[in-house]
Amino acid sequence: MIELDFANMMTDIIGENGLSERQVEALKPAAAKAHEEIASREKPGLAFMDLVKQDTSAIKDAAREIRNDSESFLILGIGGSALGPKTILEAMSPMHNLRKTPRVFIYDNVDPVTFENVLSLIDLDKTTVNVITKSGSTAETMSSFMVLYEKLKGRSGKVVATTDPEKGYLRQIAEADGFSKTLPIPPDVGGRYSVLCPVGLLLAEVAGVDCDELLAGAARMQERCSDPEPWKNPAYLYGSMLYLMDKEEKRNITVMVPYSDRLRPLAEWFCQLWSESLGKLGMGSTPYPSIGATDQHSQMQLWMEGPQDKVVTFIRVEDHGADITIPRVFKDTGVAYLGGHSLGELFNAEEEATELALATAGRPNMTLKVPKVDAAHMGELFYFFEIATAYTGFLYGINPFNQPSVEMSKNFTYGMMGRDGYEAQREEVEKARGRVTCWRL
Amino acid sequence: MIELDFANMMTDIIGENGLSERQVEALKPAAAKAHEEIASREKPGLAFMDLVKQDTSAIKDAAREIRNDSESFLILGIGGSALGPKTILEAMSPMHNLRKTPRVFIYDNVDPVTFENVLSLIDLDKTTVNVITKSGSTAETMSSFMVLYEKLKGRSGKVVATTDPEKGYLRQIAEADGFSKTLPIPPDVGGRYSVLCPVGLLLAEVAGVDCDELLAGAARMQERCSDPEPWKNPAYLYGSMLYLMDKEEKRNITVMVPYSDRLRPLAEWFCQLWSESLGKLGMGSTPYPSIGATDQHSQMQLWMEGPQDKVVTFIRVEDHGADITIPRVFKDTGVAYLGGHSLGELFNAEEEATELALATAGRPNMTLKVPKVDAAHMGELFYFFEIATAYTGFLYGINPFNQPSVEMSKNFTYGMMGRDGYEAQREEVEKARGRVTCWRL
Repeated sequence: MIELDFANMMTDIIGENGLSERQVEALKPAAAKAHEEIASREKPGLAFMDLVKQDTSAIKDAAREIRNDSESFLILGIGGSALGPKTILEAMSPMHNLRKTPRVFIYDNVDPVTFENVLSLIDLDKTTVNVITKSGSTAETMSSFMVLYEKLKGRSGKVVATTDPEKGYLRQIAEADGFSKTLPIPPDVGGRYSVLCPVGLLLAEVAGVDCDELLAGAARMQERCSDPEPWKNPAYLYGSMLYLMDKEEKRNITVMVPYSDRLRPLAEWFCQLWSESLGKLGMGSTPYPSIGATDQHSQMQLWMEGPQDKVVTFIRVEDHGADITIPRVFKDTGVAYLGGHSLGELFNAEEEATELALATAGRPNMTLKVPKVDAAHMGELFYFFEIATAYTGFLYGINPFNQPSVEMSKNFTYGMMGRDGYEAQREEVEKARGRVTCWRL
Repeated sequence: MIELDFANMMTDIIGENGLSERQVEALKPAAAKAHEEIASREKPGLAFMDLVKQDTSAIKDAAREIRNDSESFLILGIGGSALGPKTILEAMSPMHNLRKTPRVFIYDNVDPVTFENVLSLIDLDKTTVNVITKSGSTAETMSSFMVLYEKLKGRSGKVVATTDPEKGYLRQIAEADGFSKTLPIPPDVGGRYSVLCPVGLLLAEVAGVDCDELLAGAARMQERCSDPEPWKNPAYLYGSMLYLMDKEEKRNITVMVPYSDRLRPLAEWFCQLWSESLGKLGMGSTPYPSIGATDQHSQMQLWMEGPQDKVVTFIRVEDHGADITIPRVFKDTGVAYLGGHSLGELFNAEEEATELALATAGRPNMTLKVPKVDAAHMGELFYFFEIATAYTGFLYGINPFNQPSVEMSKNFTYGMMGRDGYEAQREEVEKARGRVTCWRL
């Protein structure tokens, strides 16, 4: 069971930079309203809560076929459509492509160099392409799919389209076209809340992970996070504290530091979830992806002595599942003290030391203690962060399920790419191009 | 030649959230002092400026031998000792291990799972281990080196120690031990300013990059950044603007967004450089690593509509060196407009669109325009950010070359690991362990 240790958030422990119990108490009316939003299920985006009880048989069948037929599994997706699969892959099968098959490539950009490199590494007769976009209009994903669609003609490689079950261009293409197998992104499940639908689960099964275990973990966390009372609900308490630290204590940065290489992408996944859900109407703290112990040699100076603008969340893994003893060598040097300990021991000691150092310096931090990195605990973590984010969105009084402000950039791109109806945007780009040349160095 | 476009930082273009020319003018006395600090070379950490004229023959010889003898090249290092090599590798040889030999592993943590995976992938008879730590006391690096040192006994794998030329435990071990070849980290070159010394250059040569080209690029940028006048010195202007945005405009987050997968680690490298150099005495903006176009689907909502607390730096690559045309397929759908364009065109259109969208929303941003990603331009970028960071440190009035606040966490770790002299820290840890159990959920 994952445990949330929030001692180092409280004034009792870290002094004046902490939160008082009274602050959390005072938030209770807002917390009750936020809970009501969640419990009533009126906002469409809350459909991610139903994913724990989905039927996974079609996913398992598709994955079995891919494992049997394909040397390579190539995901085309961006945002949640890439971060979910990437997080599962790295957590459950680190260094996958050097160790296992089918090899997995997650192409999550429009960088032609990366795409050429991927193409040079796969045999299109033995590749399954998994194109993931709910709307079917995502320019990055669809442009690379268009390239592959053309290249796959006359080859025995396959396509699985993960998209809206009824609407959108990709659904339209899939239905018009013989070769496409499809999996649904359920209605009202947004990209950043989609890891536990076929978006993430197909990859999980292809990489040899039982996706039902992911869902079982998520279900367990759902049960734990159903209490309306923040003091009894870890996700609500977590969200409440980050909210209070941002709104009342002016800490606008929330750092996420797993002490496990396998959880590095989890921090990125969380950052997308938090940023896109909460960054609205001038509000939203900025989530920062980090990695321990590595970033003790990169970010920690700033956390310890920089501005008082951060809250740090550690993710500590109790049992890494492997360990290596440090031999008693170099006895005449100052590193002799390391001999006889293990790497895992040093790793977790550094995590604990960093918590304590921050607390001692009056810098608020929390720790999620994860027994081990397996499918069930990954499911717990995904659900924990999703429900905490939705709850925090309701505290801010914003809609945690839309992303209205990404449109302007898309529209300028459409203008440059000559899409009909975006002539005005094209003109604006032209004007800007003329304007800026005098300001260069 | 790299170009800095700062139009979207100025009030003339983006309105009241921008900087005025007057603000930059008013900074001139402080800028002159900062320049004097740099030009006088009194601060020891400025030795990185001399790296452009180093003799690289020993590095080239060592690399030639490694390329001939080794299937795998394993770097042990953390902080700058890992980020420098990682940045060069990904920029110059992306997806290296799937495409080229010797395979390169950069072990930059103490995660036993990662270490076991690396060990399972290398043949110790055909591996060169490059252990990098200036002091030789870095616990993470030395603990994994101790493991490998023991495992290499009786095997034909080799060690290259990159460390202080005279002092420290690793130097002591290297000199007591027959098998070690060593390369120097010059005195007064700190870890985060070390990419252009043997720390990064050996990896460069092993990966087939002419390290003299890196240095030639850096030398070119040094020349361009020698003018005391901020309006004529791109690094000074860059630092001045980020400083003003932090101190006078309360923008405490500086986002770095390369639009090139190959430059993803460059953003991380910059974040270490900026964080550890400037995060002092309650000051220092927080550098945020990002990647375009991917993070348009992850962070952009927050940049566009979240709090007014950020400045964004784009890195735009003019010529990606490869491109792929999008075929004219799916003509009856809403993505037909993409057909006939190329991925590179879409990529750069998205970058330009995002600049303009931010500017239109009154969100300050700058762009570094890089003609192409090659060794010389990487050298330019490294030097640009290093000198900009040092300069900005002097503007803040802090020492950009130390990192005093990482000691406390180290000392707690020493206590837990039983190092002599750290008994008091051990006791503090024990006390904290007793204390926190009442605050868990």
